[in-house]
Amino acid sequence: LPVVKKRMKMNLQWMTDGGCTSAKGYRACGVAAGIKAGRTDLAMLVSDHPCSAAGLFTSNRVAAAPVELDRARIASGRCRAIVINAGCANACTGPQGYADAVEMGRLAAEALGLPEADVLVSSTGTIGRRLPMERVAEGIRLCRAALRSDGGADAARAIMTTDTVPKSAALQVEIGGRTVTLGGMCKGSGMICPQLATMLAYVTTDAAVEPAALRTALTRAAAASFNRITVDGDQSTNDTLILLANGAAGGEVLTEAHPDFEGWVAALMELTRVLACKIVEDAEGATKFVTVAVEGAASDADALRAARAVAHSPLFKTACFGADPNWGRVICAVGYSGAEVDDRQAQIYFDDVCVYDRGRIADAAANARLAAVMTKRAFTVRVHLNLGTGSDAVYTSDFSYDYVKINSEYTT
Amino acid sequence: LPVVKKRMKMNLQWMTDGGCTSAKGYRACGVAAGIKAGRTDLAMLVSDHPCSAAGLFTSNRVAAAPVELDRARIASGRCRAIVINAGCANACTGPQGYADAVEMGRLAAEALGLPEADVLVSSTGTIGRRLPMERVAEGIRLCRAALRSDGGADAARAIMTTDTVPKSAALQVEIGGRTVTLGGMCKGSGMICPQLATMLAYVTTDAAVEPAALRTALTRAAAASFNRITVDGDQSTNDTLILLANGAAGGEVLTEAHPDFEGWVAALMELTRVLACKIVEDAEGATKFVTVAVEGAASDADALRAARAVAHSPLFKTACFGADPNWGRVICAVGYSGAEVDDRQAQIYFDDVCVYDRGRIADAAANARLAAVMTKRAFTVRVHLNLGTGSDAVYTSDFSYDYVKINSEYTT
Repeated sequence: LPVVKKRMKMNLQWMTDGGCTSAKGYRACGVAAGIKAGRTDLAMLVSDHPCSAAGLFTSNRVAAAPVELDRARIASGRCRAIVINAGCANACTGPQGYADAVEMGRLAAEALGLPEADVLVSSTGTIGRRLPMERVAEGIRLCRAALRSDGGADAARAIMTTDTVPKSAALQVEIGGRTVTLGGMCKGSGMICPQLATMLAYVTTDAAVEPAALRTALTRAAAASFNRITVDGDQSTNDTLILLANGAAGGEVLTEAHPDFEGWVAALMELTRVLACKIVEDAEGATKFVTVAVEGAASDADALRAARAVAHSPLFKTACFGADPNWGRVICAVGYSGAEVDDRQAQIYFDDVCVYDRGRIADAAANARLAAVMTKRAFTVRVHLNLGTGSDAVYTSDFSYDYVKINSEYTT
Repeated sequence: LPVVKKRMKMNLQWMTDGGCTSAKGYRACGVAAGIKAGRTDLAMLVSDHPCSAAGLFTSNRVAAAPVELDRARIASGRCRAIVINAGCANACTGPQGYADAVEMGRLAAEALGLPEADVLVSSTGTIGRRLPMERVAEGIRLCRAALRSDGGADAARAIMTTDTVPKSAALQVEIGGRTVTLGGMCKGSGMICPQLATMLAYVTTDAAVEPAALRTALTRAAAASFNRITVDGDQSTNDTLILLANGAAGGEVLTEAHPDFEGWVAALMELTRVLACKIVEDAEGATKFVTVAVEGAASDADALRAARAVAHSPLFKTACFGADPNWGRVICAVGYSGAEVDDRQAQIYFDDVCVYDRGRIADAAANARLAAVMTKRAFTVRVHLNLGTGSDAVYTSDFSYDYVKINSEYTT
């Protein structure tokens, strides 16, 4: 079976301990504001230069106050600072919540000496609680002295909620004879579902990119990364993906027509794919990283539909947890996905083990090899529908006892 | 808040220990064919008289062999016997599986002295395994002597898979001056999702009902019962709902135009609602029975969309398990459901406790009362969208450690 999607070949250099301050001209920090006891919980990220900015936000009709505020502000294409708190989502908090988000932005703008319109605000945590504004204000005061050009790791740690590890990455690529850096951080391990940008993710680059081109690039990158992961099928009220480009690397301003644009987008896509996969690897209670690839579908849309149905199925996800060779749950989910499927044409592979081949079921030897594949930390389920040329893939995790434990005790 | 849907008032009499043989002129049995070790695993249900018959089957595009066979046979509107095995779904078994289903029906027809066309076949269990035909044949031989007019309870027990209790019910109602009985049995506790008839359910009546009217009645009853439950969002390949009407109670043949038709349909709807709720009560690993009711939606379709999104949300279901007062997950799911929603207009109740009122969040006292509601075995979540007059409700269960345990070890 062939690889689902070919990626553009590039000479990328991944950076050790890279993150949102790896690109030139960015500073960040994480401080303990007392919103979550005993750890850092408020982060700030700022560009030393004016930026192009693009953002993608949740398509959930119930959007958090900071999402509403950021949507309005980033329309200008010109923001350069973000203040982020963990521990409270500031969602479903009504007009008071919106006023709190505006005030959080105002305090950050004041601390940074920037116009309010240049500052974005993010929140993550429990829905339906007010932001503790005194603590937020105190945290922002602390940020002023804490901002550092190597503060990306601190920021990545401060935005965690049920995450068990901070998530950062950065890479370098030659663009027009200059070294351009792209770096980013994200958080999220539950309420993760591919509809738009998922949870909180911030990407910075020192390339110079014109705002409209930045939006195009971000949309393409999200489609292949944050929109291809699912933990639980629950799309958050706070999903946010922000991309800043400050031009500090020098060089021409990239537009969509610029010959270097595609190369830079390819690098952005690599970075966002790695960041998105870090979320799945740290999914709540997860013990597996599972790639669900569908090929030979009647259309790409059908392939995505089928892959998502499998990746969302609690029966499939619990079978992955138990390494239970119950491949019938794969074809069952494909069947109800809405995708065109004929089970007498379909084939199913777990890595290189064929468990179902156009109406012929696996023998005992294949089932034993299947069980061995499923005990691995990471494996790929490939469904070949043999109906056309459509293909797509989704990244997901398993459902474990710890998933239930984490989510039955979250607020209490 | 008002009740979601008003039910027709009727003088129903529920029968103690009622089931699929409570109506006149039906016999059933359950025998141990050796398909599942140590218990009964093959059931037969037959009418002593010719019947009208109607059936609804999975809308999963991957349908099991017995579903394909039954779809073709029941189109005549005139079947009168069903043979059912547990332990093997006979799904994804290709042409061999279809031949096995035909042979299973042929053996049953021979044992009963009926034409093959009068006999339906059902299977439930693991997908992707062949039926052990020698055992099936032996089981059918045993059925011949085991069939009894009080055999409904044995049949209900023989069709169980991960079910922990058999599920039967029957009621009597006056129709046109005569006592008419409706009874039924069903099985199912996982791979349950409201798209069509869910898992296996068999309803018998001694009313005389014309086949076209029987189909109409069954479609209406399924919409309000089996199509309103969800355990895990996974729609099975084998979902089957069969209704037989043999006229043994005497009286005129009911058509849709007959003045007694609506009364009989209302009784059928009560029976199927109770049978469907028995599946949710016995959902895999479940500790709660949760009714998700949505009112004030822009349309009934929107209400159903919103209710299903909440009922499918793993985050909501794990919160129910832990009695974690995390009502934000309810509004989050409504938000991504696709239904029209404005969180500044919406209200959320758990039983009589208001936790969210048009942008105003619950105080500590309400949260304490919420936690108390959620410790109950059964409660209702009501979302009032205040946008229109659309309403609907869905019945669901929670996600527990045992759900993960059961489904991570199912085939092994």
